[in-house]
Amino acid sequence: MNKSLVAIFFSFALVAQTGVDGPQFTADGQLTFPKDYRQWTFLSSGLGMTYGPAASADPANPRFDNVFVNPSSYRAFIETGHWPDKTLFVLEIRSATGQGSINSAGHYQNELLGIEGEVKDEKRFPQKWAFFSFGGKDRATAHGADSSCNSCHAQNAAVENTFVQFYPVLLDVAKSKGTLNAAFLQKSSH
Amino acid sequence: MNKSLVAIFFSFALVAQTGVDGPQFTADGQLTFPKDYRQWTFLSSGLGMTYGPAASADPANPRFDNVFVNPSSYRAFIETGHWPDKTLFVLEIRSATGQGSINSAGHYQNELLGIEGEVKDEKRFPQKWAFFSFGGKDRATAHGADSSCNSCHAQNAAVENTFVQFYPVLLDVAKSKGTLNAAFLQKSSH
Repeated sequence: MNKSLVAIFFSFALVAQTGVDGPQFTADGQLTFPKDYRQWTFLSSGLGMTYGPAASADPANPRFDNVFVNPSSYRAFIETGHWPDKTLFVLEIRSATGQGSINSAGHYQNELLGIEGEVKDEKRFPQKWAFFSFGGKDRATAHGADSSCNSCHAQNAAVENTFVQFYPVLLDVAKSKGTLNAAFLQKSSH
Repeated sequence: MNKSLVAIFFSFALVAQTGVDGPQFTADGQLTFPKDYRQWTFLSSGLGMTYGPAASADPANPRFDNVFVNPSSYRAFIETGHWPDKTLFVLEIRSATGQGSINSAGHYQNELLGIEGEVKDEKRFPQKWAFFSFGGKDRATAHGADSSCNSCHAQNAAVENTFVQFYPVLLDVAKSKGTLNAAFLQKSSH
């Protein structure tokens, strides 16, 4: 049998199973915008979520946030409760609309306002995880290790550096696999 | 070259590209619960959406709704602005939580409250589209063609029988492909 055909077959199988769906970087270390992220795995969404004091909220103009992760990392988390190296989260922010079509109350999603990313790459980043803001561009530079994103996630994340406390399906997985951060468990028990 | 290997290769390629991700029915015509729907393609979510009069809303206990569709049908819609036969929508309903962890305002998602489905199957249903409520079970019978789901969707849907008006990415596709329903366009222009 033809060896090159075997090679093609197994390459195809590998792509189909594991996906080439993690973070891609340019030669100068910028994260490439993951253009297919809307076909990645959805984790959860919130409306008007506010990490600072409640007084900083803007209830008249709440925003939706949708969180996606690359599919192969999602499958790994379901199996293990841990994030594999080369995981990429995408945070999509959208405006909220109230009345429209047959909707008379509550909110649904509208315009795209911003896209941010969080990457796990143990060799590339000393702190393992890094944050990115695309700002409409097709590549982004990592925020510094002392950014507010980094410090807030390091202090409050439920699993590793990620806010699994807000993703109900994954929170159940982390509980059953015993992978919740000790600091998170201690705060939750108060 | 070995003919059976070629057959395996192309079968594999077909599954990887088109997916075996549409609706599955039991011999007696019940829709099987699509257990992997959380890995399907997310369309959008809303909070406290209310199709009846605003007075029927429950603002003290708003619910999130997440909508997913089987990936191969999503890809077809992106290409054409139409839903292929054997499309399956999943509507997931979750409770909303306000304060928790570092969140001080707004809402994020919590407990699973219900799962419903909408299927396009032109041979199986005279009206082409049918609705299902799983109620925690692993299979569901179609609601009658005169159900409130059917009549509301038939009267108000943006594309075919579906509420694309609430899925911003797909609404842009339908506009560019010219596949919005005439009745929806007429109402929108008022």
